[in-house]
Amino acid sequence: MKIKAAIIGATGYTGFELIRILSLHKGIKSLSIISRKNENTPLNQIYPSFNTIKNLNFETLDIDKISEGNDVVFAALPHKASMKICSEFLKRGKKVIDLSADFRFDNISLYEKWYAPHTEKDIAKQAVYGLPEIFYNEIKNSSLIANPGCYPTSAILALYPVLKERIKINDNVIVDSKSGVTGAGRNPSLKTIFTEVHDSFSAYSVGSHRHEPEIEEKLSIIYGKPLNVTFTPHLLPINRGILSTVYIDLHEEKSTDDIYNMYTDTYKEKHFIKVLPLGKFPSTAMVKASNYCFIGINYNEYSKKLIVVSVIDNIVKGASGQAVQNMNIMFGMDEKTGLEHLPTFL
Amino acid sequence: MKIKAAIIGATGYTGFELIRILSLHKGIKSLSIISRKNENTPLNQIYPSFNTIKNLNFETLDIDKISEGNDVVFAALPHKASMKICSEFLKRGKKVIDLSADFRFDNISLYEKWYAPHTEKDIAKQAVYGLPEIFYNEIKNSSLIANPGCYPTSAILALYPVLKERIKINDNVIVDSKSGVTGAGRNPSLKTIFTEVHDSFSAYSVGSHRHEPEIEEKLSIIYGKPLNVTFTPHLLPINRGILSTVYIDLHEEKSTDDIYNMYTDTYKEKHFIKVLPLGKFPSTAMVKASNYCFIGINYNEYSKKLIVVSVIDNIVKGASGQAVQNMNIMFGMDEKTGLEHLPTFL
Amino acid sequence: MKIKAAIIGATGYTGFELIRILSLHKGIKSLSIISRKNENTPLNQIYPSFNTIKNLNFETLDIDKISEGNDVVFAALPHKASMKICSEFLKRGKKVIDLSADFRFDNISLYEKWYAPHTEKDIAKQAVYGLPEIFYNEIKNSSLIANPGCYPTSAILALYPVLKERIKINDNVIVDSKSGVTGAGRNPSLKTIFTEVHDSFSAYSVGSHRHEPEIEEKLSIIYGKPLNVTFTPHLLPINRGILSTVYIDLHEEKSTDDIYNMYTDTYKEKHFIKVLPLGKFPSTAMVKASNYCFIGINYNEYSKKLIVVSVIDNIVKGASGQAVQNMNIMFGMDEKTGLEHLPTFL
Amino acid sequence: MKIKAAIIGATGYTGFELIRILSLHKGIKSLSIISRKNENTPLNQIYPSFNTIKNLNFETLDIDKISEGNDVVFAALPHKASMKICSEFLKRGKKVIDLSADFRFDNISLYEKWYAPHTEKDIAKQAVYGLPEIFYNEIKNSSLIANPGCYPTSAILALYPVLKERIKINDNVIVDSKSGVTGAGRNPSLKTIFTEVHDSFSAYSVGSHRHEPEIEEKLSIIYGKPLNVTFTPHLLPINRGILSTVYIDLHEEKSTDDIYNMYTDTYKEKHFIKVLPLGKFPSTAMVKASNYCFIGINYNEYSKKLIVVSVIDNIVKGASGQAVQNMNIMFGMDEKTGLEHLPTFL
Repeated sequence: MKIKAAIIGATGYTGFELIRILSLHKGIKSLSIISRKNENTPLNQIYPSFNTIKNLNFETLDIDKISEGNDVVFAALPHKASMKICSEFLKRGKKVIDLSADFRFDNISLYEKWYAPHTEKDIAKQAVYGLPEIFYNEIKNSSLIANPGCYPTSAILALYPVLKERIKINDNVIVDSKSGVTGAGRNPSLKTIFTEVHDSFSAYSVGSHRHEPEIEEKLSIIYGKPLNVTFTPHLLPINRGILSTVYIDLHEEKSTDDIYNMYTDTYKEKHFIKVLPLGKFPSTAMVKASNYCFIGINYNEYSKKLIVVSVIDNIVKGASGQAVQNMNIMFGMDEKTGLEHLPTFL
Repeated sequence: MKIKAAIIGATGYTGFELIRILSLHKGIKSLSIISRKNENTPLNQIYPSFNTIKNLNFETLDIDKISEGNDVVFAALPHKASMKICSEFLKRGKKVIDLSADFRFDNISLYEKWYAPHTEKDIAKQAVYGLPEIFYNEIKNSSLIANPGCYPTSAILALYPVLKERIKINDNVIVDSKSGVTGAGRNPSLKTIFTEVHDSFSAYSVGSHRHEPEIEEKLSIIYGKPLNVTFTPHLLPINRGILSTVYIDLHEEKSTDDIYNMYTDTYKEKHFIKVLPLGKFPSTAMVKASNYCFIGINYNEYSKKLIVVSVIDNIVKGASGQAVQNMNIMFGMDEKTGLEHLPTFL
Repeated sequence: MKIKAAIIGATGYTGFELIRILSLHKGIKSLSIISRKNENTPLNQIYPSFNTIKNLNFETLDIDKISEGNDVVFAALPHKASMKICSEFLKRGKKVIDLSADFRFDNISLYEKWYAPHTEKDIAKQAVYGLPEIFYNEIKNSSLIANPGCYPTSAILALYPVLKERIKINDNVIVDSKSGVTGAGRNPSLKTIFTEVHDSFSAYSVGSHRHEPEIEEKLSIIYGKPLNVTFTPHLLPINRGILSTVYIDLHEEKSTDDIYNMYTDTYKEKHFIKVLPLGKFPSTAMVKASNYCFIGINYNEYSKKLIVVSVIDNIVKGASGQAVQNMNIMFGMDEKTGLEHLPTFL
Repeated sequence: MKIKAAIIGATGYTGFELIRILSLHKGIKSLSIISRKNENTPLNQIYPSFNTIKNLNFETLDIDKISEGNDVVFAALPHKASMKICSEFLKRGKKVIDLSADFRFDNISLYEKWYAPHTEKDIAKQAVYGLPEIFYNEIKNSSLIANPGCYPTSAILALYPVLKERIKINDNVIVDSKSGVTGAGRNPSLKTIFTEVHDSFSAYSVGSHRHEPEIEEKLSIIYGKPLNVTFTPHLLPINRGILSTVYIDLHEEKSTDDIYNMYTDTYKEKHFIKVLPLGKFPSTAMVKASNYCFIGINYNEYSKKLIVVSVIDNIVKGASGQAVQNMNIMFGMDEKTGLEHLPTFL
């Protein structure tokens, strides 16, 4: 079986990356790209690096027409704009993978506090949080995937092994994350022009980033009781990559080996997650342009402080690659399909 | 048919890139990696980003054993060290693709002037210069490929259309090239440490780089008579990519359309070469981590000055990707096999 | 004597750099900064790195008030907007240093062809091209300085020694220049966002950049007869710096020593110009954040091809530093005043 | 009064930066630079950007001769090599500023645990930890300054206001620091070559960096009782700059205003420390190439979590600039002398 896929909002970087992956995906029969801003424009004109993809033009957003011609819809739209459109496709029986935050929250009032009023609350209940290493079975049976945020993906994968075991911990988890600039999208702004980012580094949205409640909700669900998360994002002068350094205090006796085994056991069957040997820590280059997540851990038996360092490519495992992984699972394909390429490293 | 391939000298960046490409190549049955420096070391230990390639260890350089177990040998060795080893594999009936400069020159005395005494002159006569867009047929029938230098690849592809037409030109061609730092290899030196390269830009080997005679010889062969080339390399604070800006003075009447058509006609059947629309010029990002070469041209009908800008990824089309393209041709496969991945751009 | 200085249009990077230099300049009694966009805003709010400069706010553009309170006006305004304002200050007896292109051309019709209609033609005749190493005496006696473009500064300094000697040359000079991103100003655009510039390199405005006629006119004046210049700008993923690689064919016999001595003799009394030893070539880092220009040369006696590599910091020697150097000369101070700081290199 | 100063070990980046600052310092009468590796070599040959400093050559390390001709000695030597040499100069009555770790610890056994056996224990007792914003008076009266580590400077300045007030806190302080590559020195190694650092980001020495005990000892002294510090360093793809994100849990009721006032009160007379307005956070560019430290804070009254973000230039305030600040204080000069230059920002 081959799938017909459409990408709504295909001109941003997550759209770009979806095209890059799906245009070589063996399970894809056809690809449609939709962009209001660039309708009827050839893809090559917006992204010259896609010069070898022939005859692909941005199309108008015609929901009926797209529904007729496609099996799955990726929504790469701004928050709030996405929910209504996803809802329309769902009603037409399509499978939908939403890369916005619109369906990520179990607690809709949390969404409304941090984002905007939610107009599709009924549909929101069907949504599954698309982190395949944790919610594989739910994803398999769902028609609406809320593709996780990039920071939450890196933080949750770093903490999942210890939290799912319900280890006693200090309620306050610290997530110190550093992201490449593609996370800020493709719209020009003073904060993302080259001259203000290059050869510099900064913290931003300290104490107020919208990924904090997303991380907090998902970690609390995994842990089975409420957790507080302190989340600080930083802007790295690189294109691709998030590195999260996570700090957690254990309240029970564990050896370093206990902890390490928790990580390797949890992820040993998970193709995209690699736990490095003790004493080794990852760099973002190690996963560049790939769907992998690498994890290094350090545990101090004396202070009971666990430090976990995780890296992902924010627009692959943190967005478009994970979206394709979700699509693969939803359609019964091997989750690795189209995502086999190795990190470019350099 | 599937091929068994060995890489000799697999720890440098060209070796790295060969592994990255070949480990997902559909025509490859098995891959052996050889490194004196790292023999018996797991690949993952040298390149953690290859964590997902299981059970691949660096092996000792045992020529007989490697010959028995392989159909093709990639030599990613330093100049001078390469020729003897290539010769041994050739004698054992293997197909050899040499990424060093040892077999690139038709005129061996030119090699000896710029590099070192040549000990394999007889074998050198069999070597074919592995630029598939120009020497496809010769490559197809050869057992020894001299894989071109990275700068020469970018310069020759920029000039081939106008030179093969034997257009009358000023004898003095200027090639102003700018390369990413992977071109300098993986050995630490003061000139390539981060702090001395980052946020800076410099010219080097002005008037004395060893790629100048290589460019000059190949362009002269294509043109059918001797050409002088002035070549200036520069070091860019990027990892991957070469951009060459080439200047040539025409001595006959041509319209801009004439020139442009020469380019598009020459390359219209060449999958990896893209001539951009008039007025557009490429960036190195447009071909990042891919085997493509993008070309933009500007012709001034009044001054008869032709400016050609070409970009390649120096370790893909400028080294390992082109080597794999050569292997594909030598073994009767589609030249694109294993090289279909699109530029990562970001 | 101490000077009172005003900067009109002080929020861009050249304005920023003027403030950085002038706020520590020993000959400055007071500094006013004017910006329509940010009037009444504290400087620190626009540029937090100026946190230590107390009580400096952007003021409204009130020409009479500024004229009363200042001796010199730096106009750091867009082309076309600048000429009228400069004219008003000149009429009020102020000395004016214009960083735009509005008064750079001797041949006004050339300006009008490349920029816009000129409304201040009479005043334009008084303007002196502010390249102190060449026009020191004219600057000393002028009230209106046309501060040179960044690319022209780097190109003209590279060629001045050989052209002023009226050496016979091929009429076609090639200037292949590479600039950091500050040259594009502080206004956000897709072309200058971090993600599209970082880890990449590109040519732009090939055959059509407005600095080409400026270079051509000034070199022709120096040479005493018309010269054709082929100028290709490129965008470097760095903040500060221009490196120009200049190619010129000699038509008379000269030894390498002859040429080298021409350079060292010409510049031996010029504090800001350093000719490197033969065989050495500069990097942009060597002049970072300073007013210096470093030059390296290579001459091939056989082909008579001269290659000159020059580097400057585009917003210091290529803009604001040179403007201050001009101010120093106009007011009878040592030209080095306020510009003594060494390159930061790293 | 003017001082004669010598720099021992002047070829590394801290040596470079000392020369850059001291060669324009109004209180310096003469400067000698000593380097075993480069003795008798002109400074320009090692650092061409110092082309404008005439007649300065690296000298041999002759302790008597240097003592005779100088008032103060800066030791920019590797740990362990430094202590003996500092001791010799001290015995000859010189004032010594040691940039190594050799005299930083009050508890010598801590030094010996993390570094090497200490051979100058008696002298170590005289050493003052050279953080002028905290130990100004001690520095004024000392002959031996232990110049603080770069990471400790950034961490201690971030925490000093709240710790000196003896606020009740959770014993476990987290310091998540990110440093530019100059912190690794100028010796080439695989870990610091451009290609492995550029466009990447990594954690290193997690749980085992030698600056952790230094931070812990100094914070404990300031706080008046033992504190545990968890310190994680990361490598940024930039040249200059450290940003530390510090997390601390308060155990008593404080308002955000209370905390903010603690910071602004503590530092209001400290020229080099700037506390940003609430809601603002610094970037490393804001202090680039300057001796400033910028601090931003966020306090959550509900969770009682305080987050402090501090930035310094690691080779200025984190090394050579601070060393000069210490020299100024030791010799009764204004501490700002020679350090007035503003951040270059770009």
